[in-house]
Amino acid sequence: MSANEPFTATDHALMARALRLAERGAYTTRPNPMVGCVIAHGEEVVGEGWHVRAGEPHAELHALAQAGARAKGASVYVTLEPCAHTGRTGPCADALIAAGVARVVAAMRDPFPQVDGAGFARLRAAGIEVRDGLMEAQARALNRGWLSRIERGRPWVRVKLATSLDGRSALASGDSKWISGEASRRDVHRWRARAGAILTGAGTVMADDPSLTVRLEDDTPFVPPLRVVLDPGLATVARGRVREGDAPTLYIHAPDAKRPRNLQAQTAHAPMRDGRFELRAVMKLLAERGINEVQVEAGATLAGALFVEGLVDELLLYVAPVLLGERARPLFDGLRIDAMAQRLDLAVVDSRRIGEDMRLLLRPRAAAA
Amino acid sequence: MSANEPFTATDHALMARALRLAERGAYTTRPNPMVGCVIAHGEEVVGEGWHVRAGEPHAELHALAQAGARAKGASVYVTLEPCAHTGRTGPCADALIAAGVARVVAAMRDPFPQVDGAGFARLRAAGIEVRDGLMEAQARALNRGWLSRIERGRPWVRVKLATSLDGRSALASGDSKWISGEASRRDVHRWRARAGAILTGAGTVMADDPSLTVRLEDDTPFVPPLRVVLDPGLATVARGRVREGDAPTLYIHAPDAKRPRNLQAQTAHAPMRDGRFELRAVMKLLAERGINEVQVEAGATLAGALFVEGLVDELLLYVAPVLLGERARPLFDGLRIDAMAQRLDLAVVDSRRIGEDMRLLLRPRAAAA
Repeated sequence: MSANEPFTATDHALMARALRLAERGAYTTRPNPMVGCVIAHGEEVVGEGWHVRAGEPHAELHALAQAGARAKGASVYVTLEPCAHTGRTGPCADALIAAGVARVVAAMRDPFPQVDGAGFARLRAAGIEVRDGLMEAQARALNRGWLSRIERGRPWVRVKLATSLDGRSALASGDSKWISGEASRRDVHRWRARAGAILTGAGTVMADDPSLTVRLEDDTPFVPPLRVVLDPGLATVARGRVREGDAPTLYIHAPDAKRPRNLQAQTAHAPMRDGRFELRAVMKLLAERGINEVQVEAGATLAGALFVEGLVDELLLYVAPVLLGERARPLFDGLRIDAMAQRLDLAVVDSRRIGEDMRLLLRPRAAAA
Repeated sequence: MSANEPFTATDHALMARALRLAERGAYTTRPNPMVGCVIAHGEEVVGEGWHVRAGEPHAELHALAQAGARAKGASVYVTLEPCAHTGRTGPCADALIAAGVARVVAAMRDPFPQVDGAGFARLRAAGIEVRDGLMEAQARALNRGWLSRIERGRPWVRVKLATSLDGRSALASGDSKWISGEASRRDVHRWRARAGAILTGAGTVMADDPSLTVRLEDDTPFVPPLRVVLDPGLATVARGRVREGDAPTLYIHAPDAKRPRNLQAQTAHAPMRDGRFELRAVMKLLAERGINEVQVEAGATLAGALFVEGLVDELLLYVAPVLLGERARPLFDGLRIDAMAQRLDLAVVDSRRIGEDMRLLLRPRAAAA
């Protein structure tokens, strides 16, 4: 098959299968990307696997182990370019060469500087037919967090909020328990499990005392996301459920804040301007710590500031069919819109009923993908 | 078939057909109820019809005309008890008797004082088997406006609003053009066409200058709804598109307002309290004028006041995927909610995408049907 021939229906079906396998690592592979692999002769699958956890074997090695001697002369469908460098596991390209596979179809090139085409080159040098770009859009969507970190130097930022129909996330008193229904509150945990970090502010810690841990209803394994509290003066470190439980906690503070003695949690400082964190610097800091995806669960001020800074990649909005009235707090603060031309346009990526609520997943128009 | 035997699948199918026929009168029968009628021998339909327009023949007469001699011995499915009084057309019960039908199945009794069982009684007296209550809930839902007027002495009140995700219906400047998309704005016209009246306030007339007419994209016939402006001092009568076009306009004013000479539009006065209309009295006045269903297209103040008075039967909400920010106007004004227990709970009756927007149809929990 020449590089110009179109991919076949079988190619598409097996890559789709590889993508579904990759998705199984959503709660565990980070900071690594999710990768799935299918090895087949024609339509007959002889091996498959996915990358389960950072530090453990890559998807290709699982699939090769399953295929055994049948890998010889087979086609390999992999959602990301096989690695050529020796990381925590040996290079996958070498393993594929050693197994004698005939053809490798990848969904996308690996933009990671240590790979970036080197995997393909090594395979081709060994006489293996290599194609890439099959279902690339889906593969990129799967790893949008990881790609954001590699390509933009910041995590994919998802702002989660619960709102009334009239756009209020809390009463004037600060009371927000509960606007959304139980089913929505359960649903949030699956989104948390995907995230490398859950970001909140000191104000939310004081007002709501959230634990920000993942509680799933089944026993799906997950890596506990890092809980991150933006707390300029480290005023909340002595309190709160955000320090309890199995998940790690990171307090981000102002450069001049005094770190209390005996503080068990992690701390880091980020630059501030006019008494507020420079949010781009905060996101860069999180990317440097290997965070692919951040879920923001905070109040109107932080959510609004992220929008103003253009740092929101998606908005996960649970709309409860209730009215809280004009005295309640706004959903976002600080947007300062005075003319229709300034309004923020979003695209609805997904909408569905969750219990009595509506769940909307939206992306800013400019960034919609 | 005795009165205790369950209705058959054929009975259900033919009544469902009669209900769909009735619905065809949605834009034209008012102030009369929508009624559909199917005449059949077993599964074989020999005549069908619906009430098209007040003053014209009832559904039964259309169906009888189509059935001709085959009405003899047939079953008649009708969505509302046949009338026994001589209104603008002769009593339908007599026509059914004269045609020699064997059985009449009605979805519901007619609560209109001049009927209210008299139609059934007249049919039974003529030896016709009569059953009622088949798909009664659907039949009541079909005519909820008319039933509201007959049973509660006020119209069914639908509040239509367009909102941003953050619950804002206009910018601080009053600008609301346009929050919702074109498809939503087209959709509104079909809801207007169902309503006997479109209600607005003087503030909306001044700020937005709406015409409040029905503009459909196809040539479906409709009776133009009455446009009603709440204008205590008749300050807006000299202006505005709300006075133009083919639809009638009614200004409701304070008892002491001076009616300008040469005013072509209708006027009526309603009691006021603390400078605001007593909205229950306004609704009673509209019911007395034969209005079954009112669509409110006004600002946050009137919409909020209707909620506070418990006068909202449904909320038709177009949610545009945009953010307007905390400076913009609230969706409802005057709700004065200070505790979660005071919040207004609604039920989502229908939700769908209309272009880029979400359209939600909601009903207050207590009144949800």
